[in-house]
Amino acid sequence: MKNFTKTSLSNEPRVELHDTLNLTGAEVSINALPAGAGVPFVHSHKQNEEIYGILEGEGEALIDEERVALKAGDWLRISPKAKRQFFASKQSGIKYICIQVKENSLENYTGTDATIL
Amino acid sequence: MKNFTKTSLSNEPRVELHDTLNLTGAEVSINALPAGAGVPFVHSHKQNEEIYGILEGEGEALIDEERVALKAGDWLRISPKAKRQFFASKQSGIKYICIQVKENSLENYTGTDATIL
Repeated sequence: MKNFTKTSLSNEPRVELHDTLNLTGAEVSINALPAGAGVPFVHSHKQNEEIYGILEGEGEALIDEERVALKAGDWLRISPKAKRQFFASKQSGIKYICIQVKENSLENYTGTDATIL
Repeated sequence: MKNFTKTSLSNEPRVELHDTLNLTGAEVSINALPAGAGVPFVHSHKQNEEIYGILEGEGEALIDEERVALKAGDWLRISPKAKRQFFASKQSGIKYICIQVKENSLENYTGTDATIL
């Protein structure tokens, strides 16, 4: 059995990778909102930290009622309990990655987890 | 104390976000290789699953000695023990995200972890 899985995305408005790639440590979604649009609800999490990366365009996040301007190249960590909602700007759509991971689950990384062969 | 952290990236060849964003469930890096270049070593992991997303350009991964063509929009999950090495193509650079998470650490996600407010 292969030690990897692969998928190729097009320009879908939202893609979730957990089931497609058989992920076991994260859910990863790629999301696009057209200009003037927003996620239609506010949400928080029970145990998952979320990491957002803005790939294209610009917009705004509302996090615990604070307005946070977003543009391509911005990355955020949001604690599970924070109340969050994402919007594209009126002038531009926005494309972003969202990574869900269990808070405090990472034990080692890079220098302490990788083996150079 | 705020329930989020934020950073803004430019076009650095490699950026690691764990310490900058105080991540606790993942390490996330954004990597760029110019045309004809490759990561100069093969590596595997002790306990971390890696998720790679190709943002721009094209190249190739060598995974357990299998050549895997890569282009923008491709996403991969690689098991900890797999031997991996990434290359840009000769004609084009490649930009990609790498997410390290502890294998089997995700307990719930989306429908079972999010709360709509």
